[in-house]
Amino acid sequence: MIDDRMKAWAYLSRVVEGPNGNLQALLKQGRDAEEIALGIKRRESWLGDLLKETASRADWDTSEQDLKIIENLGGRLITPDDSDWPTEEFEHAFGFAATGMSDHVRTYQDDAVAPHALWVRGGNLRALTAQAVTLVGTRAVSHYGTEVASMFTDNLVAHQWTIVSGGALGVDTVAHSAALRAGGSTVVVAACGLDRSYPAHNRQLFEDIVKSGKGALVSEYPPRTTPQRHRFLTRNRLVAALTKGTVVVEAAWRSGALNTLSWASGLGKVAMAVPGPVTTAGSLGCHERIRSGSAEMVTSGDDVRSLLGAIGDIDMQEQYELSFAETPVQGLSRNELRVFDALGTRPQEANQIATDTGLPLPLVIHLLVDLHKKQLISRDGTVWSRVRDVNSALPEF
Amino acid sequence: MIDDRMKAWAYLSRVVEGPNGNLQALLKQGRDAEEIALGIKRRESWLGDLLKETASRADWDTSEQDLKIIENLGGRLITPDDSDWPTEEFEHAFGFAATGMSDHVRTYQDDAVAPHALWVRGGNLRALTAQAVTLVGTRAVSHYGTEVASMFTDNLVAHQWTIVSGGALGVDTVAHSAALRAGGSTVVVAACGLDRSYPAHNRQLFEDIVKSGKGALVSEYPPRTTPQRHRFLTRNRLVAALTKGTVVVEAAWRSGALNTLSWASGLGKVAMAVPGPVTTAGSLGCHERIRSGSAEMVTSGDDVRSLLGAIGDIDMQEQYELSFAETPVQGLSRNELRVFDALGTRPQEANQIATDTGLPLPLVIHLLVDLHKKQLISRDGTVWSRVRDVNSALPEF
Repeated sequence: MIDDRMKAWAYLSRVVEGPNGNLQALLKQGRDAEEIALGIKRRESWLGDLLKETASRADWDTSEQDLKIIENLGGRLITPDDSDWPTEEFEHAFGFAATGMSDHVRTYQDDAVAPHALWVRGGNLRALTAQAVTLVGTRAVSHYGTEVASMFTDNLVAHQWTIVSGGALGVDTVAHSAALRAGGSTVVVAACGLDRSYPAHNRQLFEDIVKSGKGALVSEYPPRTTPQRHRFLTRNRLVAALTKGTVVVEAAWRSGALNTLSWASGLGKVAMAVPGPVTTAGSLGCHERIRSGSAEMVTSGDDVRSLLGAIGDIDMQEQYELSFAETPVQGLSRNELRVFDALGTRPQEANQIATDTGLPLPLVIHLLVDLHKKQLISRDGTVWSRVRDVNSALPEF
Repeated sequence: MIDDRMKAWAYLSRVVEGPNGNLQALLKQGRDAEEIALGIKRRESWLGDLLKETASRADWDTSEQDLKIIENLGGRLITPDDSDWPTEEFEHAFGFAATGMSDHVRTYQDDAVAPHALWVRGGNLRALTAQAVTLVGTRAVSHYGTEVASMFTDNLVAHQWTIVSGGALGVDTVAHSAALRAGGSTVVVAACGLDRSYPAHNRQLFEDIVKSGKGALVSEYPPRTTPQRHRFLTRNRLVAALTKGTVVVEAAWRSGALNTLSWASGLGKVAMAVPGPVTTAGSLGCHERIRSGSAEMVTSGDDVRSLLGAIGDIDMQEQYELSFAETPVQGLSRNELRVFDALGTRPQEANQIATDTGLPLPLVIHLLVDLHKKQLISRDGTVWSRVRDVNSALPEF
């Protein structure tokens, strides 16, 4: 059942490679995929800069073949129109990126945009990432890194966390395999078409993940797209964007895993790193991030869950409070309230709120974005304020 | 050559075991050792609480024998009267402890007092500790801990830092041995008389340190004192007090090394810990201290020197500036100036200054105590202010 809407999205996925701010802007303005696809084919001027960006690929319409390939693989193409689109995580991530608070995001601005469509094999991506954490690390994994990745995965999977990673050799492979072995959920974010297996060595692992019925393979790239260096870098943002936080298990100085960690911070997620022996170079990158304060030190899955739990889980008591909430403010979680109260009646920067509440800055920013989505606070540049109506609606204390 | 003054000190060392605030107060009031020793023997009432504290040992005068034992070992008894008394480190440490800023010091208040006399075998203790760092850790040292202790020691010794430790099995022994092997200086702080070797296994190592001509054995306890649990705890403060900072190399939850680390902070020294594998319990204590912010993470001797260098070394440029200093303020080191400037004209807490300068709190406190000693600032409770005269003496900027 390949309809015109799906063909339009598949066409856009091929012709507008990777994230594209101009395409996102048009979608936000209410243009739909079919309209934009037709516009590109017809070189219509209202497309603005997108016209230039698609000039060389505009006639390259392989949408039917691409959709057939993914269908034959038992997969599908999903878009923001679909119920299994991970809306919450993406809104949080790219909403935060848009605040421009991270150096990393400023450097890789073009990539700091949501994907417009995702090719998926396996389970419901939104459900899989409702409680998910990213585990990444060096390809040159040591015996130590292997032990750590397995230990963390076992703990997280036992508490129903989905393990998201990049499917690379080394730490990524250990994390995916350990999750599968433990009967947990795991998601591979590929940097090539899902009809390909990269690295080839992991072909069977990837098939097993799909067959397990508890995981998924995801890619921003249409079938037959080859893995290329720039795609790995773009892919890294997606690995971080899909979860509540990223843990770097083992990484030397120039590991790509550190790039994913920077994306996590830049997307308002919790950045974490595991320490290791100082007698080898294997954990140098982790130590550097911990020391500079750009990652929280975690030594177990418990640590990870406790850091993410503050933003990820809603415990029974909170659930109860939520269902009896009388005002939007009374419905806030403890940590949201902490930030909301610290914000007070004067506009403030996130840094100041972090100092006042004693919460880590990335968490504060995460909570600010949440409060913003709940329309309780507003943002002007880097300064946040309570929305006037909310102030007057506050109950008397 | 055993004179009456030395006999009085040896008597006090035996009769007033370990640190004693009342004895220190009397010495500060200008009473001399002979006068106090005689007073104790005669049960004189002006001794106040010291009388009660010495009641059971007052008649136990073994000073001549004790001094002969240490003389036969080629050692000596040193006191604040002697030029090789480590005056600077002790003034800094116990001056800081007296500010009462540390929970640890409040808990172990009785021990937060300078020693009144030290038994020494080997070199000049003041010279040895002019540039010294403490390395401690678990007795149950792993292969990893052994590697780390050797690696750090080699680096520090190569840069003329003296390694101070407690002479225990495990990390302490590795540090002392590595220092000796590298031709460096090392100081053992014992918790028993220096005519004993505890642990017995280290008898030869201790002799080698004395013979090397580049190290020393030190004890607060007179000859024939047996090692006992409470003495180890009291000794730990001395291990931390003698140096500019303490590094815990490897320590599980309940390691005594963590007690030494708490002393380091409590005495205004730099507290440091080395991370390690999270797959064993060996570095749990280190990780806990790093995470809680009560120790700086160090991954190499370079890291240690860079943290201590800020307070330990005076580089050539600073030396030059010092010799041409025109006002007390112009004579300050870069970091002292940083703190002095951050203090500004309004009284402030050390925490605020740490935030303003971006320096770690223990270092800020160290520098505040230094500025206090130079009579440039004063302290009222936990609040520090510039001395009025200094403000008016400031050059125009």
